[in-house]
Amino acid sequence: MYATADLETNLKILASKDMRAFDVEFCSGDAMKAVVLAAGLGTRMGAETPKPLVKVAGREIIFRTMKVLSDYVDEFVIVAGKNKDRIDEFLRDKGFNYRIIENPTPERGNGFSFFLSRGYSGKRFILVMGDHVYEEEFIRRAVEGEGLIGDANPAYVDVGEATKVKCKRGRVEEIGKNLSDFDLVDTGFFVLTDEIYEHAEMVVKEKEIVELSEIVKRAKIPVTEVSGYFWMDVDTPEELKRARRFIVRNSIKGTGDGFIARYLNRRISIRLSEYVVDHLSPNQMTVLSFLSGMLASLLLFFSIPLAGVVYQLSSVIDGCDGEIARASMRKSRLGEYADSMLDRYADFMFLFLLGYVSNLETQMWMFLALAIFGSVMISYSTEKYKAAFYESAYAAIPSLRFLVGKRDERIFVIMLFCLASMVEPLIVLLAVWTNARVVLTFHIIRKNKLVK
Amino acid sequence: MYATADLETNLKILASKDMRAFDVEFCSGDAMKAVVLAAGLGTRMGAETPKPLVKVAGREIIFRTMKVLSDYVDEFVIVAGKNKDRIDEFLRDKGFNYRIIENPTPERGNGFSFFLSRGYSGKRFILVMGDHVYEEEFIRRAVEGEGLIGDANPAYVDVGEATKVKCKRGRVEEIGKNLSDFDLVDTGFFVLTDEIYEHAEMVVKEKEIVELSEIVKRAKIPVTEVSGYFWMDVDTPEELKRARRFIVRNSIKGTGDGFIARYLNRRISIRLSEYVVDHLSPNQMTVLSFLSGMLASLLLFFSIPLAGVVYQLSSVIDGCDGEIARASMRKSRLGEYADSMLDRYADFMFLFLLGYVSNLETQMWMFLALAIFGSVMISYSTEKYKAAFYESAYAAIPSLRFLVGKRDERIFVIMLFCLASMVEPLIVLLAVWTNARVVLTFHIIRKNKLVK
Repeated sequence: MYATADLETNLKILASKDMRAFDVEFCSGDAMKAVVLAAGLGTRMGAETPKPLVKVAGREIIFRTMKVLSDYVDEFVIVAGKNKDRIDEFLRDKGFNYRIIENPTPERGNGFSFFLSRGYSGKRFILVMGDHVYEEEFIRRAVEGEGLIGDANPAYVDVGEATKVKCKRGRVEEIGKNLSDFDLVDTGFFVLTDEIYEHAEMVVKEKEIVELSEIVKRAKIPVTEVSGYFWMDVDTPEELKRARRFIVRNSIKGTGDGFIARYLNRRISIRLSEYVVDHLSPNQMTVLSFLSGMLASLLLFFSIPLAGVVYQLSSVIDGCDGEIARASMRKSRLGEYADSMLDRYADFMFLFLLGYVSNLETQMWMFLALAIFGSVMISYSTEKYKAAFYESAYAAIPSLRFLVGKRDERIFVIMLFCLASMVEPLIVLLAVWTNARVVLTFHIIRKNKLVK
Repeated sequence: MYATADLETNLKILASKDMRAFDVEFCSGDAMKAVVLAAGLGTRMGAETPKPLVKVAGREIIFRTMKVLSDYVDEFVIVAGKNKDRIDEFLRDKGFNYRIIENPTPERGNGFSFFLSRGYSGKRFILVMGDHVYEEEFIRRAVEGEGLIGDANPAYVDVGEATKVKCKRGRVEEIGKNLSDFDLVDTGFFVLTDEIYEHAEMVVKEKEIVELSEIVKRAKIPVTEVSGYFWMDVDTPEELKRARRFIVRNSIKGTGDGFIARYLNRRISIRLSEYVVDHLSPNQMTVLSFLSGMLASLLLFFSIPLAGVVYQLSSVIDGCDGEIARASMRKSRLGEYADSMLDRYADFMFLFLLGYVSNLETQMWMFLALAIFGSVMISYSTEKYKAAFYESAYAAIPSLRFLVGKRDERIFVIMLFCLASMVEPLIVLLAVWTNARVVLTFHIIRKNKLVK
């Protein structure tokens, strides 16, 4: 993932796993400002929306960058063009501290837009393109850098189209789209000091079209390498799709996933999420997943095998709300809470009605009561762990992941038995399986905690 | 609770709720040492155990003080007499950083013991009696003080027996057991600087019996008032009992308590805890409570009313493990986890066997499945809250406390119906009540979170 090849350019390499904690540096109360260039015309996207406001995986490009940066930045200085009012309107209720500067002549280039931020940016500041999409981890590493943040191993951009950088002694030597000999690709992310405005002023006085790359070259700013992370200049609908795909696929949490979720459900849900992330909210997805579970339960009155299949389908859909929430930066604890409460009721409903439509004898109802109880207790045993120890049980005790019995695994097995119309064996199996898993879970947790 | 009367002595008053956070001062890495006087002969207690090792509510007196102090103190200097080896043996595996200094002539008085700590205590240090019991909150406030920590409103000690202090301009003017005109009572807790050893040396040279109070008087140390908290010089078995009672009664957590727990169960469990705190561990109590629940379930085969009463009894006993754990400073997350897992199984067992012995018809088994499910879900709905929001639901949303349906309340109602042998109405009631409560809980949480 990280390019650590020696580029003979004395770069400060940040992309290394064993770095000291990022937070330390930013504890010192030395908050920066960030200049966001959002005056671009974005003519290639076809749509009317200004590029910074284009949604990628359910979130506007500019929001994505500002949201992550807001851990490091105390004010955003946004240079906008004709889209000024729309950007202002969009940002108004988002909770950022920002000011907008208008560039009345955006056709003079992004270097001219940048020059207009002079006097607003503070001594040391971040400069970032408002129409680039960056993976969160890229930004967290880039803010630690100095000068131009370059990628020596750009995995997601078309290098032919990209701005290339040639370094000398850790500083920009040459920069341009047509360099044949280069060390890194310009990511559009910079950590600068205000001395650069003097160079900008010179270029502005000399030329009509002011390219940021020319300013950067004249200032011979330092270069920091942050390689291998996802970032893109989203210019075409195809690139938009590629960005959406990466973000959604990167949004699987996974620590609580069972084997079925990992090897079957996620492969489907992630495609579904990609498809709906721009259209449905996580909460709508939660409701949809609950309704599909209810639908499965009602289908029991018509066909047990069909109901089993729809139940498995609802288990696939159940993965989408979390994926969409993470991909579109809408994670909410209330959403997580609601999702898991509704899951319990959907599971109850299915088992309960399965017993009802099967005209169980009293003895089988006793097993069903055990199966229903055990199913909730599987969730209870891990949630109570988190409530008591303030850490995820599966993250803290990885061996718990091998205890089959999580929701995705149960539902898959339920579907198989429903397809075979083997209701009573299923109920006995669930009664034993779920409660055995709870006892084992407790046993493993106890062993783990007593050792410590 | 806090005396804020103006004593006309210019005291620094610490016992006020609106003080700044304590932690701030101690963040500065300026850790102190604490001198603990543990050479006393303690002849009045009857037993052979040295007084600092006497257990009060399941914990040795010296351990209680050192445990709370260890948040502020990096080394303990313990002055011991003939009991030196026993104290050393006791402390060896408790995780404190300590050194023991032997006083070969404890009969020379506590001032002489104190004098022996010279050179070990550092510039600024805490001095505390190893045979006094202090409420945790007293210590947390006292460490913020300066000089002698005095109590103007001692609620738990026999003032006639206590050492009294008369102040002048915030410093000790007179001190002794027989003062008729005094401002505060000496709590045996001091925050001192090493200058006091010079005064100690003078007294040691002059007198055979060296009282700490004499040193304190000569040094005219400052006085800080921390009033109204629990602290005691435990000298007699009666005082021991009084201290135990206070500590156990102060150990009720209560945020998750329902109405039955608050107004009935706690009144009994607290007396039971007082009785067993010196003999049973919290884990033993958890097992005992689970076994009593199992016993109640098995009694269903013989008599439903009797089973109901024993079930309610087990609900009372269920309060003791937490009380004992907190009173004896043995709180453990694993203990909390085990307790709540076992509670769920005890509740399941009772309802399940209640259905079994009642020869329910199939339809009633469906209600029983609902009742069983709803009962777990009540716990699930609050534990999942804590797992998602990292705060106690009842503490964060106090209105949830009025939703009857917590375990203590359910069990009490179950007992009433069992006494009347009304099994089927009970099951229908529980099926509706528990699930309605879960839906209401979710509704209240959602409303609360959306407002924020």
